[in-house]
Amino acid sequence: MISCDTVIIGAGPVGLFQVFELGLLGLDAHVIDSVPHAGGQCMELYPDKPIYDIPALPVCSGRELIERLQQQIRPFAPQFHLGHTVTSLQRMANGRFSLRTSGGLAFDAGAVIIAGGLGAFAPRTLDVPEAAPLVGRTLHYKVTQPALFDDQDIVIAGGGDAALDWALALVERVRSLVLVHRSSSFRAAPASVARMQALCDEGRMQFCEGDIVGLETAAGALAQVRVRTRSGMVQRIEASQLLVFWGLHPALGPIADWGLALERQQLVVDPSTLQTSVPGVFAVGDINTYPGKKKLILSGFHETALCAFAAHAHLHPGDKVNLQYTTTSPALQRRLGVRDAKGTGVVAQPPPRVEASAA
Amino acid sequence: MISCDTVIIGAGPVGLFQVFELGLLGLDAHVIDSVPHAGGQCMELYPDKPIYDIPALPVCSGRELIERLQQQIRPFAPQFHLGHTVTSLQRMANGRFSLRTSGGLAFDAGAVIIAGGLGAFAPRTLDVPEAAPLVGRTLHYKVTQPALFDDQDIVIAGGGDAALDWALALVERVRSLVLVHRSSSFRAAPASVARMQALCDEGRMQFCEGDIVGLETAAGALAQVRVRTRSGMVQRIEASQLLVFWGLHPALGPIADWGLALERQQLVVDPSTLQTSVPGVFAVGDINTYPGKKKLILSGFHETALCAFAAHAHLHPGDKVNLQYTTTSPALQRRLGVRDAKGTGVVAQPPPRVEASAA
Repeated sequence: MISCDTVIIGAGPVGLFQVFELGLLGLDAHVIDSVPHAGGQCMELYPDKPIYDIPALPVCSGRELIERLQQQIRPFAPQFHLGHTVTSLQRMANGRFSLRTSGGLAFDAGAVIIAGGLGAFAPRTLDVPEAAPLVGRTLHYKVTQPALFDDQDIVIAGGGDAALDWALALVERVRSLVLVHRSSSFRAAPASVARMQALCDEGRMQFCEGDIVGLETAAGALAQVRVRTRSGMVQRIEASQLLVFWGLHPALGPIADWGLALERQQLVVDPSTLQTSVPGVFAVGDINTYPGKKKLILSGFHETALCAFAAHAHLHPGDKVNLQYTTTSPALQRRLGVRDAKGTGVVAQPPPRVEASAA
Repeated sequence: MISCDTVIIGAGPVGLFQVFELGLLGLDAHVIDSVPHAGGQCMELYPDKPIYDIPALPVCSGRELIERLQQQIRPFAPQFHLGHTVTSLQRMANGRFSLRTSGGLAFDAGAVIIAGGLGAFAPRTLDVPEAAPLVGRTLHYKVTQPALFDDQDIVIAGGGDAALDWALALVERVRSLVLVHRSSSFRAAPASVARMQALCDEGRMQFCEGDIVGLETAAGALAQVRVRTRSGMVQRIEASQLLVFWGLHPALGPIADWGLALERQQLVVDPSTLQTSVPGVFAVGDINTYPGKKKLILSGFHETALCAFAAHAHLHPGDKVNLQYTTTSPALQRRLGVRDAKGTGVVAQPPPRVEASAA
């Protein structure tokens, strides 16, 4: 059981900056995210694409934004638990919260801040009725045991790097391999696409342009994959294993089951505190809603500041916290590690003079 | 008469970023500020001091923040009118606004956004009863005609660059010059302080450490300056002219007279639109108040985004504006000048690929 001031659910840009705002007020944070790296949508959806509307950053990529935020929160040494989905959240008799994760961690937190964006990222799944009972046995959204495919007839669906990389990795060990993708243009590395096309030319694998419209099963296992090709004809491909790599998409997931007030799949918050319908549970960023809400990264950043004050008030009722400025406050500068412990001077390089007014 | 979509009053960081958020929605802006340069408190109070709490900028000085914002808003070519105080704001019969400035400019604006910070910066004044009738004749807070001091006995009050620079500039033309400052430490350039001390040593001027506690007048003109020195003694210095350089401080000024609802000298706004009590007049940044308001630059930045949408709705009622993302929207990218007019490609250097999802 990990005991802490706050748990932040979501390591996207807003979850990361929440660490900063909490840290300025002297609160620690453990950050949990379902994907194995920080960055949220910035890293999943547009790591290399430009963002123009972060104030005072005329242009930066999603990846650069995340790197800058990680540098900024370093003084507060947040603890990350990545690749964990929070599966349960419960208010305990003493007013604190018990959280459990898919990875078996348990937390005892004074406040919980949900910075879950559009939800936890999960694989896009094959939406045909025959699919569900096969998952994990003859239908897969990730590869955990490559040996499962040895000498099998397999179909791989998808046109991105995951589909191409696994096709190239498995082609040597399978009996037959068909790559199914709805278009002849691919979102994968050009070198991978060229290698795949060469393997097709050599007859070592096959590419089929079309959409999977159904599965045929026999004795509870996959037997055939039905593909509607561009001509309109439905072709049946015999296969004992199907791998689907259609990317990740966000889904609210377990958060919907925690008894928090929802409006159109978003958590309803008080805009002055960012508190949800449950005292001590807050929500910041794209996952919340309030009058006038705009789903901008900038909105989430601002919400983290208000939320930090509200979380502090929840954890330390009665303590008055005055707004201080990082430009002038020795206390904040000590927390940021830019002023030495005795408060006699600023230690950053080059030594900035810190004396006068307000940020 | 300058006709425009919006007038922004205040060229501090929040006023500058307001230009950006309006520009993304296709609205133009004229920016007015009482001081002769952009930057507001960042430039007046802490140009060289570090700010640590701007998201994704782990540290930057007040000056750097302003330079970054000026670069970011360049695509929208805002027009600046610096050194102008807005003296009147009136709603016209057609619902638009008429504004006049101290410099004689007149505007006809569809919406007005007050980003006035703590108010217009004005000189700190000498608070003794005899002072007011002398201002502009024998008591000055700025120098407009240096010849006024030729062969006069003058006192200069202050310990910053303005006081020292004027002492060094005027010492050659006056009959006598006494510099009065409450402390023997100065906030001015070390070279100026050294030069002043050398002139004192040479007997060409004099330094008096103390506080001005009163003035004596004769026939409506200044006769003596009363200074309480560190020993407690009050000394009278004969002088015909007094120059006071105690820096600038912000004051709400004419804004208080525009009939807008105020609460503790702040403009009351709806936090979802940033609109004041007068439709079409908005307020962002330190000058406004709403439940939970924190006077952070970050708060003002976020407010500009919400305000831009509300200003657009005021100017174009009935037009629906969907939230778009700079990462993905060709329309926003054309306004930013990073995509060519035909929409066929992104033109920035290095050419960023702009295809997929959301910022």
